Amino acid sequence: MKYTIFGESHGPAIGVVLEGVPAGLELDLEKVQAELDRRAPGKSALSTARKESDLVHVLSGLFEGKTTGTPLAMVIQNSDQHSSDYESIRYTPRPSHGDYAGFISSKGCLDYRGGGHFSGRLTAPLVAAGAVAKQLLTQRDIWVGAHISAIYGILDKAMEDPEELKVLGDKPFPVLDDEKGKEMQEAILEAKNGEDSVGGSIECAVVGLPAGFGAPDFGRNVEGIFSQYLFAVPAVKAVSFGAGVGFAYMRGTEANDPFEVKDGKVVTRTNNAGGVNGGITNGMPVVFEVTLRPTPSIALPQESVDLRTGEEVEMEIKGRHDPCIVPRALPVIEAAAALAACEVLGI
Amino acid sequence: MKYTIFGESHGPAIGVVLEGVPAGLELDLEKVQAELDRRAPGKSALSTARKESDLVHVLSGLFEGKTTGTPLAMVIQNSDQHSSDYESIRYTPRPSHGDYAGFISSKGCLDYRGGGHFSGRLTAPLVAAGAVAKQLLTQRDIWVGAHISAIYGILDKAMEDPEELKVLGDKPFPVLDDEKGKEMQEAILEAKNGEDSVGGSIECAVVGLPAGFGAPDFGRNVEGIFSQYLFAVPAVKAVSFGAGVGFAYMRGTEANDPFEVKDGKVVTRTNNAGGVNGGITNGMPVVFEVTLRPTPSIALPQESVDLRTGEEVEMEIKGRHDPCIVPRALPVIEAAAALAACEVLGI
Amino acid sequence: MKYTIFGESHGPAIGVVLEGVPAGLELDLEKVQAELDRRAPGKSALSTARKESDLVHVLSGLFEGKTTGTPLAMVIQNSDQHSSDYESIRYTPRPSHGDYAGFISSKGCLDYRGGGHFSGRLTAPLVAAGAVAKQLLTQRDIWVGAHISAIYGILDKAMEDPEELKVLGDKPFPVLDDEKGKEMQEAILEAKNGEDSVGGSIECAVVGLPAGFGAPDFGRNVEGIFSQYLFAVPAVKAVSFGAGVGFAYMRGTEANDPFEVKDGKVVTRTNNAGGVNGGITNGMPVVFEVTLRPTPSIALPQESVDLRTGEEVEMEIKGRHDPCIVPRALPVIEAAAALAACEVLGI
Amino acid sequence: MKYTIFGESHGPAIGVVLEGVPAGLELDLEKVQAELDRRAPGKSALSTARKESDLVHVLSGLFEGKTTGTPLAMVIQNSDQHSSDYESIRYTPRPSHGDYAGFISSKGCLDYRGGGHFSGRLTAPLVAAGAVAKQLLTQRDIWVGAHISAIYGILDKAMEDPEELKVLGDKPFPVLDDEKGKEMQEAILEAKNGEDSVGGSIECAVVGLPAGFGAPDFGRNVEGIFSQYLFAVPAVKAVSFGAGVGFAYMRGTEANDPFEVKDGKVVTRTNNAGGVNGGITNGMPVVFEVTLRPTPSIALPQESVDLRTGEEVEMEIKGRHDPCIVPRALPVIEAAAALAACEVLGI
Repeated sequence: MKYTIFGESHGPAIGVVLEGVPAGLELDLEKVQAELDRRAPGKSALSTARKESDLVHVLSGLFEGKTTGTPLAMVIQNSDQHSSDYESIRYTPRPSHGDYAGFISSKGCLDYRGGGHFSGRLTAPLVAAGAVAKQLLTQRDIWVGAHISAIYGILDKAMEDPEELKVLGDKPFPVLDDEKGKEMQEAILEAKNGEDSVGGSIECAVVGLPAGFGAPDFGRNVEGIFSQYLFAVPAVKAVSFGAGVGFAYMRGTEANDPFEVKDGKVVTRTNNAGGVNGGITNGMPVVFEVTLRPTPSIALPQESVDLRTGEEVEMEIKGRHDPCIVPRALPVIEAAAALAACEVLGI
Repeated sequence: MKYTIFGESHGPAIGVVLEGVPAGLELDLEKVQAELDRRAPGKSALSTARKESDLVHVLSGLFEGKTTGTPLAMVIQNSDQHSSDYESIRYTPRPSHGDYAGFISSKGCLDYRGGGHFSGRLTAPLVAAGAVAKQLLTQRDIWVGAHISAIYGILDKAMEDPEELKVLGDKPFPVLDDEKGKEMQEAILEAKNGEDSVGGSIECAVVGLPAGFGAPDFGRNVEGIFSQYLFAVPAVKAVSFGAGVGFAYMRGTEANDPFEVKDGKVVTRTNNAGGVNGGITNGMPVVFEVTLRPTPSIALPQESVDLRTGEEVEMEIKGRHDPCIVPRALPVIEAAAALAACEVLGI
Repeated sequence: MKYTIFGESHGPAIGVVLEGVPAGLELDLEKVQAELDRRAPGKSALSTARKESDLVHVLSGLFEGKTTGTPLAMVIQNSDQHSSDYESIRYTPRPSHGDYAGFISSKGCLDYRGGGHFSGRLTAPLVAAGAVAKQLLTQRDIWVGAHISAIYGILDKAMEDPEELKVLGDKPFPVLDDEKGKEMQEAILEAKNGEDSVGGSIECAVVGLPAGFGAPDFGRNVEGIFSQYLFAVPAVKAVSFGAGVGFAYMRGTEANDPFEVKDGKVVTRTNNAGGVNGGITNGMPVVFEVTLRPTPSIALPQESVDLRTGEEVEMEIKGRHDPCIVPRALPVIEAAAALAACEVLGI
Repeated sequence: MKYTIFGESHGPAIGVVLEGVPAGLELDLEKVQAELDRRAPGKSALSTARKESDLVHVLSGLFEGKTTGTPLAMVIQNSDQHSSDYESIRYTPRPSHGDYAGFISSKGCLDYRGGGHFSGRLTAPLVAAGAVAKQLLTQRDIWVGAHISAIYGILDKAMEDPEELKVLGDKPFPVLDDEKGKEMQEAILEAKNGEDSVGGSIECAVVGLPAGFGAPDFGRNVEGIFSQYLFAVPAVKAVSFGAGVGFAYMRGTEANDPFEVKDGKVVTRTNNAGGVNGGITNGMPVVFEVTLRPTPSIALPQESVDLRTGEEVEMEIKGRHDPCIVPRALPVIEAAAALAACEVLGI
């Protein structure tokens, strides 16, 4: 299965083509839409005021409710665009956005309106593709769950068992410890009030992957496969598995996961490895954490350069932006993980 | 350029095939060998006592000292193998090694001797391939440098400018602060004496990559490309760019990199983004950090399972192992980064 | 550049996503539409009576008339569908169509209406993608031309110089010898009147490709690259380069192309090799011929099997079909060749 | 499974790395060697006098006689090289060889000795890889057979049933009609005596492929997959499936394959489609024909150009060459077909 996302924030439509979907899947389109709704903005004070109905339309690959095995194309029409908000940034790149790098790579032909193809809006088709992947995984008793693990230095309580994530999907603010969740939300609102933004982390688990998938080699190792999907999500700047960066503080005796037999199955007592040894699944949940940078679009004045004159200028970003992208990114990370898990399984 | 590594730790030879090497490169084989020597074990008390001469032989793709554009195959003969050390682990997987996952994925046909294809020894051909990539980058005034940023919680001093890395290549223990380096080495020796091991981190920079390479999309974004190469290095469990996991503790005002003009060029004052915005190089050094787990092979007794009987057993690992893989992994990470940079540039 | 085609003949829309289009191309959409019009049916008694306006809409990747380097998505709405014509073939596969193979591969979930994803209609997005490729080639002074070289055993006169193809594009029936063209058209009409169909061949040349592109190796040799694109065109069953199958009748002295110097350039006196030696372009025009099978949809009764009961049945195909696909396939073959040439050039 | 071939005719060794070989295959190395012996030269007056023992050595991916699932590397040492034979062609490209195109693509750094990487000798590792593929197919009751279908216009009798090919493998000159075979051999010897060469064709069948594999789309259609492997064999200039170029002479009534039920299975009465409809296997044998050009290396004087001075020169090719490559190419075509069949099956 291979996905290709297309579209620009202020173009006519955005979408995705999924090639290699197995035939015969009874696709539940309501569940696909429900995933998109989880990602949609405008639901609370925490996110951008921009309204996006994000209704998904299937153009191909589905017949009488079942996948046909041919490319599955899904599109979402764009609407509620305020393109004029962006005229001022056309030649004045926003710090830490894709504007400048995109201007160079496009030889100056960038669709700058609303971030164009770089917009977080492009994660909507990714969520749609991931929703298809999730249904393929469900058939195999594999599920994906996630929680917000940190916002601006406020950490959620440590996950003890990935099963805890199973019930979080429907929470408006998915954390394990709701008290910590409140603190996080306050930090987001405070940033918003200060015309600023904050970053954070998401911890995610894929539960039910059998042992023996993957390989140590380039292009085939499980961590490499997952990271490809995860770094394709805008704002993700770090990906770690199991104990992750914590390994730099550990001894082998602490880090190693002892084997044991449970219900006749070989398992590990701990899961510091995050379900992967030697690039191959070991049958334990694949657990990883991603860190997302603070939204670069902040209302405070910033320093930039006029790309026409080459002069340094001060700029102010107009438009409506999320003070923290993490809550809305959570279903996106789950979608990326579901697609990665399908690749690992050879689906 | 695409690399394929083959071989097993105790097989006749290991090697790599590099496809797509540009023709006409005057390949300095001494420099290739020098990179292998940086990785070679047995040079100090910090590493395994195993001796590997690791002499590289070019089988193809080179004629009269220049690359021909056809596949470049390099092999390294194996030697100094103590296969009998491993008989005891054949059906008793070492905790947190690839043994168990590999046993399942190979349907029980695993070459268990010395870790087989999962051995850290397989990083030697990767270093050889990376040495070719480095020479291609040198032609374009691009260089790669790295330092050990952490060992068992002891942090090197923060890098202020990637130029500091330029001189570290020849150091036996490449850190920015040699005092910290001494502490790190003590921590390694202490672990060794305790029949244990320790983990750590490496920070690496690719300096000189022009702006405008990459794309935000899956398979083409710079972070995703680098992470594919980095997670293919055994023991790497985390990859982060720029401020990395630190973004979870930051506000947008702290995280954003203001633009300025320097010597007529658009640059950023800080480089929290690690040289990448929107998946595209922005002209600043690409800076990333990887975390490596403690060597899973420790001499202390550990809990495992006999895969034949399904019974829990205690095991002891024989053989000679590195108490910390980080120092020897440094040239490997540089090699992976050089190969990744070539892919980003379309070489 | 990589293309992905999606859609079904009687679904809401068909389309294509082109990834990796170089930024900054001033895309002439009228020329794209003109290529689609060359392929469109309903223009003469020779083709199906089905009307397809085939208006192309760009959804992404284009801004202010120029390509942005992001994925270029183009869609064509479907219309004039007579789905009821196809009810009878749902479980009775048409001989030599994709129906049976598609039924098996889709696990019975085939969109059988109008051939679904197997329909010749899916060549419309291919022509659109090829039209973009042609404009990229034009920038490099490379052009693609083709003529109908055979219909039902009637051969066009032999091409002496690919330059002859330059003017054929606008001909309603592109042959080098119009007398032969008339005979061919009569053969098509005769087949049509007899409720039958006929096959034929197309010879195509890509002129202006510089020497030195490609490689002898799998996945990189020029003939292999072209053939991938050409066999992806429905009904193509043979692909040959230069003297092609004629080489089986030749001696080396006849087959070899002597070198000579012309205008200070190394060229070959003849071009039996079709512009490719050792899998690499030699600077001469890349010349190839494809053979297309007779349209399998014929009105005469045919033998099939009822896939529900497993019983042999006689069937009659309803619907409107081309008695010969070759004339409408010509712009499709040109499109495939243009895309292949871009891959060869690394565009 | 993916193969990468490396090596030059007069380098130290040639070889192949096969990635993705399923674990647990009991590899019969004698059968691998036997396939190489079928390809080896020096066995009759029909082939080059060059002796190549072509002993295959496995470097990795095999343990205790079984594949481990890790990359399988096989090398063949070079020997009996007369490099001095080739000094004269260094700057004087042989007509219709890869010399000139290779000189340009390698920026003048071509290993010209014995054809370098362009040598037919590089088909030896391909045969080794194909021999592994054949053993994987045998496990699934799939086999590959071939006959020489034409030499210099002398045609073998038409194959009526692919089963006829089953016994041909051991024939020194594999044709269906031995009388025709004698004529062909005479034609080859006559060409040899005249210091010339001749071309020909090979028809090949893959028997036992189940229906439903492949897709109509680019990169996934069965004809496209096979053609990639076949055009990677040096000297192949045409590939056709089933009735192939004959379709240009047929009506739909002649070309269509009527369905019938045989032993409870849906089959087609004829197999003009060569086992593929809509890019997908239909359960009938996949039958194709390739045409190979006459060996370009002939002893007669030919016209070339001195690449240093740009002057036209007459040249004579020294060295030992096959007057017809077709007989030795037969096991190579079978190998390519076996690898292609594995890709089609997703092995």
